[in-house]
Amino acid sequence: MPQEKPNIVMMLADNVGYGDLGCYGGGVLRGAPTPRIDELASEGLRLTNFNVEAECTPSRSALLTGRLPIRSGTSAYALPGQAAGLHPWEITMAEILSDIGYSTAMYGKWHLGHTPGRLPTDQGFDEWWGFLLSSDVSWHPEAIGFDPEICTVQHLWEGKKGEQSTKLEVYDLERRPFIEETITQKSVDYIRKHAQSDQPFFLYIPFSLPHAPALPHPDFKRKSGSGDYADVMLELDYRTGQVLDAIQEARIEANTIVIWMSDNGPNVPWPWMGDSGPFRGELGTAYEGAIRTPGMIRWPGKIEPGRVSNEMFAILDFFPTLASIVGGKVPTDRPIDGVDQTDFILGKQEKSNRESLLLFIHQDLMAIKWRKFKIHLKVSEEAGGEIKTLLDGRVFNIEMDLKERHNIAVYNTWIVEPAVQIVARYMASVSRYPNLMPGQTELPAEYKE
Amino acid sequence: MPQEKPNIVMMLADNVGYGDLGCYGGGVLRGAPTPRIDELASEGLRLTNFNVEAECTPSRSALLTGRLPIRSGTSAYALPGQAAGLHPWEITMAEILSDIGYSTAMYGKWHLGHTPGRLPTDQGFDEWWGFLLSSDVSWHPEAIGFDPEICTVQHLWEGKKGEQSTKLEVYDLERRPFIEETITQKSVDYIRKHAQSDQPFFLYIPFSLPHAPALPHPDFKRKSGSGDYADVMLELDYRTGQVLDAIQEARIEANTIVIWMSDNGPNVPWPWMGDSGPFRGELGTAYEGAIRTPGMIRWPGKIEPGRVSNEMFAILDFFPTLASIVGGKVPTDRPIDGVDQTDFILGKQEKSNRESLLLFIHQDLMAIKWRKFKIHLKVSEEAGGEIKTLLDGRVFNIEMDLKERHNIAVYNTWIVEPAVQIVARYMASVSRYPNLMPGQTELPAEYKE
Repeated sequence: MPQEKPNIVMMLADNVGYGDLGCYGGGVLRGAPTPRIDELASEGLRLTNFNVEAECTPSRSALLTGRLPIRSGTSAYALPGQAAGLHPWEITMAEILSDIGYSTAMYGKWHLGHTPGRLPTDQGFDEWWGFLLSSDVSWHPEAIGFDPEICTVQHLWEGKKGEQSTKLEVYDLERRPFIEETITQKSVDYIRKHAQSDQPFFLYIPFSLPHAPALPHPDFKRKSGSGDYADVMLELDYRTGQVLDAIQEARIEANTIVIWMSDNGPNVPWPWMGDSGPFRGELGTAYEGAIRTPGMIRWPGKIEPGRVSNEMFAILDFFPTLASIVGGKVPTDRPIDGVDQTDFILGKQEKSNRESLLLFIHQDLMAIKWRKFKIHLKVSEEAGGEIKTLLDGRVFNIEMDLKERHNIAVYNTWIVEPAVQIVARYMASVSRYPNLMPGQTELPAEYKE
Repeated sequence: MPQEKPNIVMMLADNVGYGDLGCYGGGVLRGAPTPRIDELASEGLRLTNFNVEAECTPSRSALLTGRLPIRSGTSAYALPGQAAGLHPWEITMAEILSDIGYSTAMYGKWHLGHTPGRLPTDQGFDEWWGFLLSSDVSWHPEAIGFDPEICTVQHLWEGKKGEQSTKLEVYDLERRPFIEETITQKSVDYIRKHAQSDQPFFLYIPFSLPHAPALPHPDFKRKSGSGDYADVMLELDYRTGQVLDAIQEARIEANTIVIWMSDNGPNVPWPWMGDSGPFRGELGTAYEGAIRTPGMIRWPGKIEPGRVSNEMFAILDFFPTLASIVGGKVPTDRPIDGVDQTDFILGKQEKSNRESLLLFIHQDLMAIKWRKFKIHLKVSEEAGGEIKTLLDGRVFNIEMDLKERHNIAVYNTWIVEPAVQIVARYMASVSRYPNLMPGQTELPAEYKE
């Protein structure tokens, strides 16, 4: 008899823009069809208002903890040499699932800490293989003036729970084109092995593609005829297909929740990286192009196939939602910002349970999403930020004006009121539980009361 | 026994942007689902590289004549008071189809001339109802300082072949919300009546929506909850559905080619009008947002359902393609710029027969599309144009860089060579057949040789 709790396979792409996939208006338009991901979307719920954080580290933190990254000191990109990432005190989705009997594994990019006590096996994963920083670090050793005595040379790692993780070979430009093949092979092997088990499993696959340097595997090099980025999108679609095939071949499709999403918008300062679709902005800004990405959930027999919803959903919401579905215990000793979206995704209600979201970049509250509106408190142009007061802010209707061009603040000052209420609720939670600073090791006294 | 030649129902929306429809990534995202148009797209061929002209008049001219509008003096928006529009000497799709036994009708917006000899019944239509200029003229009578003694007050008209067309009531802001209802009712009546006939029919439905002033019918006012533009998109979808239902109810679905497209990109200087999707620019520019719009063709049993293609197709191409399908005679005494795309749309070949397109705005050659590239010869910012020479132009890869931001000219000067060849072919045709100027009445001597 198979276990009752569903398996969870969570694929997280690195920097896929809203407009890159076929099912989101990209695909053939971008010279890179994505038939496998499109098919996955058509088999479940496809979200068109799926909200992530503006960068890699905070998005991964929000996903695994259900908490705004500003609370856990993870609201900025974790750089080599920093004691950054998740404080061991944080409770991740992997810990929650592990506590109720799940096998857990991660293959791919961590980017939530790279110092002792902050690796995946410190955060609930039984096993892992991958890298701790970002793929662009693979460029560094070839950079003019780079000094390996002073700066980190990135490596691949592997580890098992209860053991110290092991440093493997260097992750350099030569290794770059082969990362996805290994991530996928390890994921497929894991699925095959654990499909036989009585234990349910949680497999987290944070892919390394299509993040720069977007170097395709030799099997995909020049395959699209549209350059490296299109080639790696073909590869990412193929790798996704390999994971999906493994699930099907292991006959666990019906009892496996499959999630596919991207961590943040495209990094377009490199020409021809991802496309943000109809939205303004890219990675690192508070525009929709940064924080709205593809997001889809398949659960055969539970989630209606072919459903498309523009209801607001945040990457934060997976934490309490999955906990609720499988009976995991959400911590009550800290603020949790994710909301339980179970009834929404299962179609018991049309509306989602979220109607607002705070958007931070590093230590700054940049914008507030509320219903159809976006209130920008500070300017986040590609070139950097400039501080403005609330009443100087811009207000956009992000349904009528996807490109955030027409400031409607002057005749919509009423929007200040709900915005102020949302911020006040957040501020109250911070005064009860002060935000942790990046790399902070001691918990504030308030947490122990 | 039904006639052998297929009926043709051609719906042309007014200013729907690439990103407005659900099947092109809009719909729910824009607060206005378009289920009927999306369904139509899924039943036939949906084009993601469908190219129109940058404005109303030239797009309509290109559609009906298969000729670059610059050749026929129709490359600019026809303004009231001008002797603009199609010269009677031009041969339209309606004339070609009429000549081989089709009944022909047009209900909606003409915008190809408004002086005697230049009305729809002068250009091959057996009957028509609609208006001659643009819907924004309905605003004029309420404008401060408007003088009806000097300026045109737009009217609705109707006419039958061989009779003088009749001026009906004023088309003002009060009438604006009801235009689509009448267009659709007349179209539905026409389909019902002509479905019984032995004659095939050509029904051209140039809708007035969602062009400004985007005023919905009372049945749709506030229906979307997202403003007038979303309301009129709901209405346009509903009206499209009424036409499709009439075709189905008349049991002529299998023998009717249905085409649905938009004439040009959105007019976003009015906040929250259409959305250009992932593309840069809007109506009146040479960016993809202006000249790439939704375009779809359904012909049950002949065109594969659900096919999506990013092959280049121009609105010009319908003229020779439809002529080829039904056995119409394409004129040989003038340059025809459309190419026969029959084998492409019927799926006999994956590739289209077009690999380049010249983009004019008024008298200026603004850009050349060739394969994946776009060579801008002149700058067409929203604010107006600035002349540059060919070698100073910008070159974009419009598959990698949908937003036309990364100029690749400096390391792709080789693209000048195919561009020069394309322009040289056009120039040779112009020296044989000089372009007509707007309102020109006498044909140049060269035409009579």
